[in-house]
This record gives sequence, structure tokens and C-alpha cells, in this order.
Amino acid sequence: MKVTFQIEGATPVEIECNAGDNLLELARRANVAIDAPCSGNGSCGKCRVRLMDGQLDSIKSRHISDEEYEAGWRLSCNSKVMGDCTVFVPDIASAYQSRMKTADLSSPEEVAIFEKCQNDLKASGITFANRFRSVLLQMSEPTEEDTMPDNERLTWAVQDALGVEKVEIPYFVMVKLASTLRSHGFAVCVKGELAGDTFRCMDICGSDDKMIVGCAIDIGTTTVSMVLADLETGKILAKGSSGNGQIRYGADVINRIIEQSKPGGQKKLQDAIVKETLTPIIAKLCQTAGITASSIVRMSIGANTTMNHLLVGVDADPVRMDPYIPSFFGWQGLKAGDLSLPANPLADVMIAPNIGSYVGGDITAGTLAATIWDKDEMSLFIDLGTNGEIVFGNRDFLMSCACSAGPAFEGGDISCGMRATDGAVEACTVDKDTMEPTLQVVGEPGQKPVGICGSGIIDIISELYRCGIINARGLFTREGDRVRRDRHGCGRYVLAYEKESETGREISINEVDIDNFIRAKGAIFSAIDTLLRSVDMTVDMIDKVYVAGGIGSGINMKNAVNIGMLPDVELEKFSYIGNSSLSGAYALAVSDEASTKCAEVAANMTYLELSTYPGYMDSFVAACFIPHTDAKLFPSSHQEV
Amino acid sequence: MKVTFQIEGATPVEIECNAGDNLLELARRANVAIDAPCSGNGSCGKCRVRLMDGQLDSIKSRHISDEEYEAGWRLSCNSKVMGDCTVFVPDIASAYQSRMKTADLSSPEEVAIFEKCQNDLKASGITFANRFRSVLLQMSEPTEEDTMPDNERLTWAVQDALGVEKVEIPYFVMVKLASTLRSHGFAVCVKGELAGDTFRCMDICGSDDKMIVGCAIDIGTTTVSMVLADLETGKILAKGSSGNGQIRYGADVINRIIEQSKPGGQKKLQDAIVKETLTPIIAKLCQTAGITASSIVRMSIGANTTMNHLLVGVDADPVRMDPYIPSFFGWQGLKAGDLSLPANPLADVMIAPNIGSYVGGDITAGTLAATIWDKDEMSLFIDLGTNGEIVFGNRDFLMSCACSAGPAFEGGDISCGMRATDGAVEACTVDKDTMEPTLQVVGEPGQKPVGICGSGIIDIISELYRCGIINARGLFTREGDRVRRDRHGCGRYVLAYEKESETGREISINEVDIDNFIRAKGAIFSAIDTLLRSVDMTVDMIDKVYVAGGIGSGINMKNAVNIGMLPDVELEKFSYIGNSSLSGAYALAVSDEASTKCAEVAANMTYLELSTYPGYMDSFVAACFIPHTDAKLFPSSHQEV
Repeated sequence: MKVTFQIEGATPVEIECNAGDNLLELARRANVAIDAPCSGNGSCGKCRVRLMDGQLDSIKSRHISDEEYEAGWRLSCNSKVMGDCTVFVPDIASAYQSRMKTADLSSPEEVAIFEKCQNDLKASGITFANRFRSVLLQMSEPTEEDTMPDNERLTWAVQDALGVEKVEIPYFVMVKLASTLRSHGFAVCVKGELAGDTFRCMDICGSDDKMIVGCAIDIGTTTVSMVLADLETGKILAKGSSGNGQIRYGADVINRIIEQSKPGGQKKLQDAIVKETLTPIIAKLCQTAGITASSIVRMSIGANTTMNHLLVGVDADPVRMDPYIPSFFGWQGLKAGDLSLPANPLADVMIAPNIGSYVGGDITAGTLAATIWDKDEMSLFIDLGTNGEIVFGNRDFLMSCACSAGPAFEGGDISCGMRATDGAVEACTVDKDTMEPTLQVVGEPGQKPVGICGSGIIDIISELYRCGIINARGLFTREGDRVRRDRHGCGRYVLAYEKESETGREISINEVDIDNFIRAKGAIFSAIDTLLRSVDMTVDMIDKVYVAGGIGSGINMKNAVNIGMLPDVELEKFSYIGNSSLSGAYALAVSDEASTKCAEVAANMTYLELSTYPGYMDSFVAACFIPHTDAKLFPSSHQEV
Repeated sequence: MKVTFQIEGATPVEIECNAGDNLLELARRANVAIDAPCSGNGSCGKCRVRLMDGQLDSIKSRHISDEEYEAGWRLSCNSKVMGDCTVFVPDIASAYQSRMKTADLSSPEEVAIFEKCQNDLKASGITFANRFRSVLLQMSEPTEEDTMPDNERLTWAVQDALGVEKVEIPYFVMVKLASTLRSHGFAVCVKGELAGDTFRCMDICGSDDKMIVGCAIDIGTTTVSMVLADLETGKILAKGSSGNGQIRYGADVINRIIEQSKPGGQKKLQDAIVKETLTPIIAKLCQTAGITASSIVRMSIGANTTMNHLLVGVDADPVRMDPYIPSFFGWQGLKAGDLSLPANPLADVMIAPNIGSYVGGDITAGTLAATIWDKDEMSLFIDLGTNGEIVFGNRDFLMSCACSAGPAFEGGDISCGMRATDGAVEACTVDKDTMEPTLQVVGEPGQKPVGICGSGIIDIISELYRCGIINARGLFTREGDRVRRDRHGCGRYVLAYEKESETGREISINEVDIDNFIRAKGAIFSAIDTLLRSVDMTVDMIDKVYVAGGIGSGINMKNAVNIGMLPDVELEKFSYIGNSSLSGAYALAVSDEASTKCAEVAANMTYLELSTYPGYMDSFVAACFIPHTDAKLFPSSHQEV
């Protein structure tokens, strides 16, 4: 039997199947994008599809109303195929996954932040120079008198040009040596790496192809971002980002580790990141930059410990299993050719070292970029991604920890949540008297709202609390047009009525959503609190707070303090530093000194395992209020700025 | 339309084709083995097939008699398909190609010769030791207290066991590190290479898999031979040989270079040696030796310059084109993984360096094995393969040259020629009075003759000349039952009548064959003569003659002198040293000192280009007689021993 997926705005896809097959699994096999941030356990309600024809054996979900069920709506994760059927896959089903805000790297704000990071690194004494060289060579052609074979001819020319003693010519270069020399009249460009008295050739091409390129990649659990940079000047040649293709195997690292543990799982997860995600972006950026793939002679990765393991294709199970010792923290030895990436196969893929199972190379790279390792002042570094990671310290010490904030900051675990793409409510104010909201929506002017992204949720909760619409526990305490309750009494605040939304569905935030979010922000704050306590320090000793991560780009710091998510310090101490993992990875790719410094930062960073740290759970429970059970910690909460 | 090949003793093979397709090309495409040592130009007559049904457009060849033509026999190289047809492919059609004497490496004589080579090397001061190590490690499992990740744990254990400072763990090892450690209770074997203060891991496996193996390969134009050796003890673990799969693209290097120059040719020729020839032998030897492919951590190649270029996949055209400068002489940088060979992908594939376009690494390796570089006495080294290569000298100098002897020594260019496999006449005496022959045939007792191999041809010509049946120019001068003439008057000597042969066809040697062979032996002798003259020396100054090559194994030195092929020195000065290329390759694989010495030998060897050397052509013409136009050069010719 077979299932036909009628995808909104795309060509239908058919797949052969057997009775009893899970519909979400079938969609994955057929490469039909359907969001399932909860990894298909029925809790998130994102994988809604509509049965058009045929029969499904589905469990009725709380996410599907009676009317919707009648109209054929089902959760694909809890539907079994019973015979030939046709299901409609709405565009929204992959909003979380595929409609990425890919332009964010090019906004003037992001560019300025990125450049500031590099300038800060230079100010900290990091030289942006590297050992890669591109050399133009003009050789004479062999004759009866000049009987030197091609490889010796090249060796002499390189020795002469670079003053090196030895020249290594690997297979990749050797196989095209004869033809390249002859098709370019023995005037060629050789690219490679200096290593002591040796030059390691990596590519040979015509003299018009002189660029040597570094490729820096931030692999987030949700989003992958990348820049190509000229290794001679440091200039950015192209930028891009897209969703992490692994997302169909779960929104968070735990679900993906479970998936990779299944037979064939490691390969599946590795393919999802390498073949489906990185390969097309690199290919596209090469095209944009007008370079050949083999010009990419160095790559760098900023990614969390799990992403690093899944990238390499190493069993990630130890990451989530007691005693939480992964297969590697730092590891050198990966080549682009090992992963068949569209780059020079000999290019080193430098992985920024992990610190622990839940503080990864993205944090090491981010810490490098934030230059807190070079300052006297006490800095707090917070990366708000799918997980929350915290670093605290200065030039004398660095402490780090991680907390499982869950996907709430990215719109996961929130009934109307979505990522910060077109249609996302990214900011919001509420009139205290009328309770009417004023929404700021991502997209072109006139864009109707589709859902709520992380920064929007912070604003909404902060505003609802300020207006007395919800109490410190996130429960609704006022009634009105905008406040509604379902038959179980669960309250919700309507941001957009059916007619006002893009999808025709009401956009609201309910008590379950608020509770999920309070637990997420509580996890972040209690992690900060515990990390400070572990070194006998308090909030007032913090000199600087660096907030990093894609999630943070639209964040209203004041509201984040108001709800007790970030520590209550003077607003001028906060800096948003954008995608610091990517900034750090860029530095690694372009600067030899930066990669040495990054290893040093990693070696000097202490990892605090929160889950077993005394008092963390108490701190977490205390933080699960707005702003906190101990209001003295947030004296400025809901004072006007 | 389609052609059906009815292969004697095998399953029929069908292939789709178009009208006008060449039958030999179709056989190649269909992987049907049909010999064509002349590369399909109609001159050798080996590619005979019999048309059973349908129609072929064939040129009538001098190799096909009228009766045979009537019975459907055709040369496949000059037949075009005109419609559906069925052709019978006799077993003999692939005798030259596929019925290899694969046991020769295991004969007591060959084993003794092989061992003598290694003992001579040791006597010359070469230590059989290498930098490869296999280490058993017992590590403790990670705990909450012992939080070291897998790669650091391994690094520490290796540092501890070997006293090295650095440990490199490449991707190939990293991806199986976690699972290997855990499936073997953290008791594992690590294999790798010492490089200064660094240990480069190459494999990790269970503690029951401790063997590290070297693979030495002689790639002849016709035959490929191989040994696997234990790198710790030097012990031979397995041996094998097979035909070089490239033979269907031509018997000699020139025809193969022409083939590889055609579009897609490099890949085709590389696949023929790597995928079709080396891969199955290595896999089989691994099975025989009971080792895993990844245990092969070092490989070495003894091969001529063209074979080396075709193996690497580098354009070999410069080898045959003026000014005859190949792409490389010596080149380091090839890994087993580059060729996807069934070995450790990180294994170095050491290519014994070439000296010139026609003196290759097989000769360098052979010279190493013959230890003539370590002797005071003047040695002549002759490798009789498809080409003839000569080295002359001692510890003070080494001169080398090559001549195109053609395939006659291996049975090519001889109407009843074949390789030294079952049914080959390998030795022969003729009664001077009766002119009746006594044949020695390769194979089980009672084996009927199929054809004549190189050593047999030497004997026959020597005997026919001794008996006055042919004159110094190779023309028949006596008549009798055994001597027959065709309608053009071309004489032939019948070794076996139709009824006496395995195939029912007469086995004979004719004036054309003898002429071909005289030119081959003339090329060898004039090369020796010219090389000696180039250093102002004469035959009587030769202290030792080493004859190497698969062709040489059945050679009767006295007869070879009698016909003027080898120089007329005392018989006790001759040594047959077997496959010296393989012996040398074995030394390279097992001994670091041997590989250093081999590079030294290559660097010190002078290459003499015969084709442009004054007087060579005169010398060649003078040598095209039995034994020579200057009979004084062969005073002992046809004296009884």
C-alpha cells in the first residue's frame, strides 16, 4: 500500500508502506518535512496533517479540537496507516523546520556585532594570520635537456618560492598535476600549508584561481550558520544559514542521541547534518563567492558536544548516560574528505573543543569571541540556544555550566510557538487598562501573525505580569475579551483572533505554555545563580553580561530581567553579541593564534555539573516564579526604564 | 541486437550492441576474457572465436586457415557484428590471460630464491625492522571520578605503553573508538606508526587481533604477484599472483598508454589494475592469512614506470612521448585509501622509485634485492619481462637501460605462443638425426601440449640451430616430416601433430615466429652490449649475471647463450633470482632501512636512453642472427657443456 503526501505549495510525494506504519516515520523516510520537536511523542502538537482520503488509525490528541478531528486533522506522530491514503501537509507543518530567517547574518546589526567581536580579539592580542599560502609559480616545460619529472619540477619551484626544504604532494594533487601543468603552460597556482620546513600542497590550479578560503560553521541544534573567509585578508566572502536537517529526528539533543542509538542511526544523523545540511550550504556559498570547493583549505566548527559527536559519526550515547563522559572533548584529526564535504579533502576540520557533555565547542568558541578570558572585570556569558549555557569568570578563572532550558526559547513546547521567521510575533506590549496587545511581527509590513517566537514570549509574559493579567505563578487572574478558558478551566491570552491571523487559527498563549516558559527561564536563572554561588560570588559582582545565540537577537533585556530570567544588573552592563559561536569559529579558521588560544581557554575552563550540584534543584524551584520567590533578587523588576 | 558469448566451460554471457560494433570491444565490455596481446590490430591471431549462429563481418586473417574459416573461426578483433549472433569462445582464447601459473611463488625453488634474497640483504647490512607497532592496552572504564573522554584515555594509555609524547587519532580510528572500547571492556589492540615523539594510530581492534601486516606487490605488465608479511617477524603469511587485468587493453605498455589516453581511459586502466586485479588478490590473501584488511598498515609496489602511472591514475602519455619525461620518478604520498584498496586506508603505498620512462621501480626494487649495490664485483642484472631491463655496475656506479623486447618471451607474437601455464612446452630437445623433438610440458604428468612458452622457444630455436634445421637467420635449411611449408613457402617445425595436442591443432614454430624471437633476443643482447660499451667495458669483465623475471624461471642459460641472447660468460656466473621486483618490494614493506636504501640506489643509478645512443641500432642489427654476426662474441655457442 502507499501514502500520498499532498504538500502545500509543493509536488506531491508518494511512498510505499505497510499496514501499521507510523505516518511521521513514513514522512521522514519520504523526506517530507513535518516538524516534530518532541520527536514524535505526541506532546508538542506540531505534526498536524489532514487526512484527505483513505484511513488512518490515530489517537485523538488534546492538540486537535473535535471540529478539527471531524475535518480530518490528525497528529502524524500518533497515526498508523491502515490502507492507501492521501494526507495534506500544510505549509505550517514545516514552519519550525524549513522557513529559516536566513538573512539574519547580513543585517547591519549582525555585521557590526560580528566585526566588533573580531576587533575585540585583535585588541586582546590575537593576530589574524595563518600558515596557509597560495603561490603563483611559472615553471619551464620539460625538454630533452631538462628531464625533471613533474613532481620534482613542482617541488623545486615551491622550494624556490617559499624557501622551504620539503614539499609534500598528496594524491589529490598528484593525480591532477600532469594535466594542470600542461593545460596551463606550466604557470599554475599551488595552495597549501606551511609546517616547519615543509610545505604541504593541498591543491594545484590555474594561475587565475588564487583564493584560499576558510569555512567557519556554527552547528546549532536548530540552526546552522556559516561564513566563507579569504584566508589571506580575513575578508568575508559569503554567509548563509539554514535549519539543521537533524531536526526531524527531534528538537533537542536528547531525542537525537536516542535516534542515533537505533540501528543505522549514527549514519542517519550524520547524513542529516553532513549531506542534507552542510553540503548544500557550502556549495551555495562557494557559488556566491565564486570559488572552487577545493579552495576551502581549512574549516572550523563551533557546535555543542552532541552536535560534534553526530557530525563525526561517533556514538553520542555516552553524552546522555551516566557518568556523562563523551567520546571526546577536544579532537584533532578530522579532514573534510573524511566527511565527503564539498571542500578540499585535505582541509582540517577544526572542532572547537568541548568542555563537558553539555558545554560544547560552541561555548568555547563563544567564550573566545567574547574575550572574557582577557579581562579583569567579571563577565557572565549566556548562550540562549536550545540549551542554555553559562560561563562566568575573567582572566584568572572560567567556570561553565549548562541547563536544559528546553526548546521554549525557540518556540518549541509552546502551543503557538514558532521560530523567529516571517509571521512570528517577536515583540509585544499590552495596554494595562484595555488588555489589548500591540504586536511586532517578523516580515514585510502588513505580515499577519502566524505564531510566537522566543523574544515575543518573553515580552508577552513580562507584559501580562506587569498588567496583573497573570500572577507570579503564571496563572490568569483577570478576565476579559482577550482572556479565555477551555472546558478544563485552563486560561489563555489571545494575541490574535482567528480573522487576524495568517492561518485562520487563533494565536494565544495559555497557562501550560507559560508554565513551560517559566520553567525554562527558571533553569537559566538558577544556573546563573548556582554558578555564582559555586565561586562565592553574587549578582552585584557581575561587571558585564554577554548574551549570545540566535534566540537572543530580538531579546528585550529589560523584560528578560522583569520576568526573572536574567540577573537584575544595570541594563548598560548587558551586551548582545549575536552568534558568538560563529564569530569564534571564524577566528579559528582565519587565525592560527586564535585556534591556539581556543584550546587554552578550553583547557582552563572548569565544568560544573549542575544536576548533581548541591542546592541547584532548590534554586531552580525558587526561580520558577515571576520574577522569583525571592523578590529582593529583582529589585528593578517592572520599574519603568 | 545482441551477441551471446558461449564460453567454454562457463556460463554464456549476453550483451546488447549495435550493428558495426567490434566483437573484441564487446567482449571487453561484457568482461569476457579473450586474449589480444597485440591490442586488437590483427597481428597476433590470439583472439580466435567461432561463429555458431548469426552473421559477422570479418576480415579473413592469415591466422585462420580456409578450413577453419569454413568452420566459423574468426578473429574477434577484426569482426563486426551485423545482427544477433552467438559466438563460441574456446578456453584457449584466454589462456594467455587467465590461466596463470599462480603456484609458482610456492614452489620450493622459488621460496629458496626468495629467502636467499632476504638473507643477502641482511648480509649487506640491511636491518629488517620498521616503525610499525601493535600495542595491547588495558584501560579502566570511565566513572564519575575518572571523567576522561575516550580519546584522551587512549592517548594516555599509548603514551604510557610506548613512551611517546603525542598520539594522533585519525578519523578512521576515531569513529570506531567508542564502540571498540566498550565492546572489548576497554582492553584493545592499537596499531600504528612511530614518527619521532609521535604515535600515529592507524587501527583499533580487540586484543585478539594483534597482527600488523605489510603487503608487497609486484605489478608486472603481464602478471601481478603479492605477498603478505607479518611486520613484527617478517614472516610470509600468504602469497598469490594473477594476471594483470589491464591485459585486455594491450599486452605491452605502449598499447595501454594509448588506451589510457582515450576519454575515460585513465579511470578504465586504473580500475583494471586496482579493482579487478589487486583488490581480489588482497582480499583472498587476507582470508588465507586470517587477517582483517585494516591490519595491512604498509604496502609497497615494484612496478615499471607505466604501471606505476596507471596505478596512481596519472596521465602516462608523457612516458611514450618525446622527451619521455614521466609525471614522476619517485613519489611519496599515496595512501591505500586513495585507491580504495582493501587495506588500512591510512597505509602508505610506497612506490619503488622509477629511474626513467622505461626503467621503473620494479628494476630499482630488483637491484636492491640483488644487492649488486653492495658488491665490489661487476654485476649484470637482467629482468626479462614484457620489456627487458638491464642494470650494470657495482658499489661504485650503477648504469641502467631498457629495450623493447616485445611479448615474445611470454609467448606473445608467436603463433603457438602462450604463457608458462598448464600445457606450455617449457623445454625441448631435438634429435639431430631424426629431427624428432622431446618436449617438457607444464602440468600434471600426461598433460598434452597446448602451446609454447618463452623458455620453450629459447630451447627450440637453440636446438633447431644446433641440428642445422635452421640457419643463422632463422630460415629452414633441412626438410623432413617435422619441417613443413605453407603455400607461400614459409617453413615451420612441428612440435606436436594435431592428434598429439590438447586442442587438436598442430603446434609448430614458423619462420615468422623465429624472426620475431630473434629480434627480441637481439634487443636484449644489444642492450647489454651497448650498456657495457657506454662504460668502456667488455663481456669478459662481467663477474656475475643475475637473471630475474617470471619469464626466467624455466630458462636454460646455456641455450640462451647459444642463441646469442645472454652474454657468453662462464655458466657458473649466472644466477636466476626469480621475481626480484617482489623480493625488493617485500624488503621495502618490512624494513625501514631497505626503503631508505632503495631511494639511495635509485638516486645513484644512471639511465641510458638506448634509442638515441650512438651505435645502438647497429648493435641491434648485428645481434639479429644466431648467435650473432660476430661469432667471436659467442665462442662457447653450441659447445657441449
